Order: sequence, then C-alpha cells, then structure tokens
Amino acid sequence: MQVTREDRMRCGVHLNEEETRVVIVDQRELPNRYVESELETRDDLVYAIRTLAVRGAPAIGICAGYGMYVLARNSADDLLHSCGRPIRETEARKKFFERLRSDGGALTGARPTAVNLGWAVRRMRAAADAHRSEPLDAIVEALRREAIAIHDEDIEMCCRIAEYGLSLVKPGDGILTHCNAGPLATSKYGTALGPILLGKERGIDFRVFADETRPLLQGARLTAWELREAGVDVTLICDNMASLVMKSGRINACFVGCDRIAANGDFANKIGTSGVAVLAKYYDIPFYTLGPASTVDMDCPTGAAIQIEERDPEEIRSMWYREPMAPEGVKCFNPAFDVTDHELLTAIVTDRGIVYPPFDVNLKKLFG
Amino acid sequence: MQVTREDRMRCGVHLNEEETRVVIVDQRELPNRYVESELETRDDLVYAIRTLAVRGAPAIGICAGYGMYVLARNSADDLLHSCGRPIRETEARKKFFERLRSDGGALTGARPTAVNLGWAVRRMRAAADAHRSEPLDAIVEALRREAIAIHDEDIEMCCRIAEYGLSLVKPGDGILTHCNAGPLATSKYGTALGPILLGKERGIDFRVFADETRPLLQGARLTAWELREAGVDVTLICDNMASLVMKSGRINACFVGCDRIAANGDFANKIGTSGVAVLAKYYDIPFYTLGPASTVDMDCPTGAAIQIEERDPEEIRSMWYREPMAPEGVKCFNPAFDVTDHELLTAIVTDRGIVYPPFDVNLKKLFG
Repeated sequence: MQVTREDRMRCGVHLNEEETRVVIVDQRELPNRYVESELETRDDLVYAIRTLAVRGAPAIGICAGYGMYVLARNSADDLLHSCGRPIRETEARKKFFERLRSDGGALTGARPTAVNLGWAVRRMRAAADAHRSEPLDAIVEALRREAIAIHDEDIEMCCRIAEYGLSLVKPGDGILTHCNAGPLATSKYGTALGPILLGKERGIDFRVFADETRPLLQGARLTAWELREAGVDVTLICDNMASLVMKSGRINACFVGCDRIAANGDFANKIGTSGVAVLAKYYDIPFYTLGPASTVDMDCPTGAAIQIEERDPEEIRSMWYREPMAPEGVKCFNPAFDVTDHELLTAIVTDRGIVYPPFDVNLKKLFG
Repeated sequence: MQVTREDRMRCGVHLNEEETRVVIVDQRELPNRYVESELETRDDLVYAIRTLAVRGAPAIGICAGYGMYVLARNSADDLLHSCGRPIRETEARKKFFERLRSDGGALTGARPTAVNLGWAVRRMRAAADAHRSEPLDAIVEALRREAIAIHDEDIEMCCRIAEYGLSLVKPGDGILTHCNAGPLATSKYGTALGPILLGKERGIDFRVFADETRPLLQGARLTAWELREAGVDVTLICDNMASLVMKSGRINACFVGCDRIAANGDFANKIGTSGVAVLAKYYDIPFYTLGPASTVDMDCPTGAAIQIEERDPEEIRSMWYREPMAPEGVKCFNPAFDVTDHELLTAIVTDRGIVYPPFDVNLKKLFG
C-alpha cells in the first residue's frame, strides 16, 4: 500500500504542516476535551510521554521518532545559523551528534519500560550514523525520512491486521473489546479496533460493546470515544457486565490487543483480558488477540515467564473520584496486566497473517 | 438461640435507647464518614429508604418494621395526650388505624420493587389488626414486639447461614466475594459475609478478596469497610482482576449473596455474579450463594423467568467522577443484576440448610 501525507496527518501523533513540531492528541484530556498539543522542545516531549498524554506502544514509538527528528532539526539550525559567529563543520557535527545522543537518552528515560520508545530512538540514531559524513542538512533529512518510515510502517501494519481481522467477522456481528488498542494508541486503525474501523470505511457495520476497563477506564475514555467519532454503533458496559452480554447472544466475537505473545500462544494484555477469554470459552464465542509481529516474543516460552507490573493502589481507591471510594488504608491489589492461556484463544491476528492452534507449531513457522 | 437487646443495638438498623426513633447507619456516607441518623417522622423514613441511606432487602424490612412502630407510637401519643381536649376511644382508634394504613402506604411506596418492604408493612398491619379491640397502648406494644420479632428472626437467620457457610471452608482459606451482603444490608453477620464474620469471632481467619462491584461500588464502599471494621484481612480488587487472582491460587471458595433463587437453582444477584461463577468453574474453585429461605422462589421455574432491572446510564458514565469518564451521549448498558446458571453452583446455603445438586430435586425437598 502507498501511505499518503494525509494518512499520517489523520493519526493521533504526526508532524505539523511546517514539519517543525510533533502534534499529539492529548489522551489525558479525553473524552471531555479534544486537545492537540504541539511539542517542540525536549522537555515538551519528555513530559508528554511521562504523563501519558501520548500512550500506547506504537504511538510513543512514532512520537519518539518524530521527536528525535524535530530536536535534530532545531539543533542543526542552532549550530549552523545562530550565534552570528561561524562554526567549523567538524565541530558542528560533533556537537550535533552529542546532542542527538543526549536527546535520545532523555526520551528513552521518560518511560523506561516502554520497549518501543528505546527501539525508535535507537533506530533514529542508527539512521543518523549511516549519514555521519554528510552535511548536517542531509543528516536531518535522513532523520525526517526515518521518522516517517517508522510511522508509515505502523500504518501499513495496522492496515494488514485490520484486513486479516475483518475476514473473521460478518456484517452486523456483535463484537466485544476490552481496554484500548485503537488509533490513539497506534496509528490509522489501531490493532483490536482495526477490523471495526476498516469495516466502517467499507460500509460494514458492527455492534460493538466496549468494557470500561477499570481502573484506568481506557475503554470508557478512549475506545468509546474513538468508535463514536468514527460513527460506529458502540455501547459502553462495566467490565462485570460482559458475562450477561455474552449470555444474551449479543456477541459473535471478541477482539483484544496484546502486549506480549509467548512462543506457546499465551499472551499478556490489559488486566481483565483473561477473564473475558474464560467467559468467551464458556459461552462458545470466538476470541481473538490482534497485534503486530513485534509483539511475538519467541524467546518467551510461556505466559508463566511474563512479569506482571503492579501499580498504585490509589488508581482503584480514589484516582478519578470526587472522594475516595474505598475505606482509607484498605489493601488494594492492582495488577496492570494478566496472562491469557493459549487454550482460550481462537486465533492470533498479526500483520504477517492469522495464526491458529497449535500455536507453538504455527507461531514458529511464521516467527521462528 | 436467644437474641439479646445488645445484638440488636449493634445492627445497622435498630431502635434508639428510648425506643422513640429508628437509628440507621447512613450507607450513602460510607466509607468516608460513619453517620448514624435518627428517623422519627414518616418523611424521614421515606427519604432514607428512597435515597438508599438504608439498603439491602432485610435491612429495609427491619427499618420498615421499626418505622411502623415508631409512627404508631407517636400517633397514639398525639391522639391520647395532646390537644388538651378529650377524644373518644372509638374515634381515636379509627384515626389510629387510618394513620397506620396511610403510613404503611407511604413506606411501601418509597421503593415499590423492594419485596421485603411491603412484606414488613403488611406484617406490622396484621399485628395491629390482631389487637384491634384492645387499648391503643396495647396495640402499640404489639407493634413494638412484632418489629423486634422481624429483626430477631433476621438475626437468627443470619446466624444459621453463617454456621452452615463456615462448615464449607477451612482456616486460612482465600475467599472471593462480589457486591455486598454483609451486616449493613441485613443484620448481625449478613449472608455472604456471615461465615467470615462468624469465623472471625471464633478466631478463624480468612483472606478475603472483595470485588469493587461497578457501577455502584458496593464492594469497595461497604464490603471492604465492614470487613476492615471487623478486623478481617481484606483486599479490594477491580472486578476484572478476579480471573488473575483465582488463577494465582489465592482463592479457595467464592461466597456471594442472592436476590432470587429459581426452583432449578438458577439465581439472580448483583450484576457480575455470573461472570465470577464462570471463572470459578474454569479455575475449579467452589462457588456458593448464601441467602435466606425467603429468597427461594419455587414459583419461578428457571432463571429465564427473572426480569433484570436496567438502571440509569449515568451510574456508569459520570456518577462518582470528578467529570464524566465516557464521551457525552455514548450509549451505556446498565443491567443491575444477572442470572447465574445452576450448573455453575457448588451449593446453595440457606438458613434451612445447604442444598447440593441436583437443585431441582433438593430445593423441592426443603422448600416445596
């Protein structure tokens, strides 16, 4: 496929018209306010990533790519055109690469556990290194192309996942989703929401049920917003209502994202995903996880090897509320993810194709 | 067992020392404030029931019983001792019974769907009718005894359920509960929390996991509070965390309440209960519902005959939050209850005994 400039401009993270700043949709403000922020300085970028104004592994990768380009552009500008005094080419180049390294370190440090962040920064630095002996303008241009390549690859990946996913459902189907793996967290269609949004573009309508996804409410705040913006028929439910909705016959398939897929097909995703999978199995509803090839970790043998992050209890107790909703000091257990057994999975949808059981054999064929 | 005045005074609904007012723990204020309110007038009582200051079927039944007594007492006082002018005995009696009927209608109307409310009011009126020809003082005394009898029967029922439930678990067991069926909603120990609280009195400790129970958060606000007050080891989780907690081996049994049990063992309870039951089945954990004999409805053949109440979408969208957490106008589906298939149930714990499968046969033996 050919990704156009317009495709990029419609994503939650992109460059402004003049290609001087990174534009993001501030995810902290949704669903109550749609705010676009322009990020220009290193501090702007670090703050936006650290405070989850931009979240979702692919989205922060794209943001880091564009960020590195914008910072390098400003840095080259400073070195070549400011100060009024001439600077020697070799000295400018040395300073430029020093700043690039320092900017990369700052961006990576904004969320140390975000794999895509470090990956994008390393890729940008490699692109600069590959043009090390050229004029600064040429290096900056190489960085621009690399950042756009990161973005375009993500768009293409989302499109392929959406196509594969769309082949698994019928017009009018009821689809249940958990958490948020839509355009804001990735680009274009997102992953789990891809088949729904691609379908909508082609005039194929689904009835979507979105779990609100406690404690951070990504389903209520982001998925419901993204689907409503796209004109999709979406109904928000509390997480504990999925059983009733499935039992009533409203759901034909479940689509969820994934954070890491082990070699045997076990996968980690937002807390609550494994519960949805158990319910789907009981009510005999196909259950799919959708994610890019980069999510498959063939070095991770099973889900048992995946470490689960535990987060601040206040996310459960008080974070969104007018006043605390649990007794002061009461213990809260707040795991951020859970692992879903591969035996609960109908198939894994990746940009390289749909993987069916036996997952250990078939993942190896595609990703080994 | 012998219920003492002290037992009654420790309940969430009781009479004040002078037996002139109904004292309730205001459940709307928990967990942030412990507020006892004294209710004296018909308006006080209706408002407290309507706004859920007192909630839980048995608790509002007890409140209605005491309320009818307090109103009758004041009414008799007015008729016999006020105004300075004498009133004929027959006229006073006529007015007394008129007021009693009117008070009963007002209380019943405060929450028309609450079965226990109408039941308690009818029972109080029947007690008055049985002493119709006696002096007003004697009728008021009969109402006092009847209200106390309603309360005492509930305490005895809770104790029996707690004893039966306690026989199903071992010291140190992990117990998962959903919503709130504790002392605030009933009396003494509650139903689902009964075995835990009775165990605590006897020095038997459990590790309890309480689902927060969206959207009204009864688990976070009330169950976590009641268990912490009793010194029980309680951990609050979001509803979608139950799967991870069960999978990790922390849970040995699930205890939940019930709103209605059909003749085949299907039962209605707070939304999300059926999901917990499906998870328990998958992870091979015993799943029990606990409730009084009055919850068994032998005229209801299966769960399919139970109508599910749908509530205000704002409970999901915005009710507790500083600002709305879902996009304006997005559809929300908000069922208040769900029905759990009897095949997911290990046993039904009632004050008449523990009922095991086949439920249709064994419920008939005990309740037919």
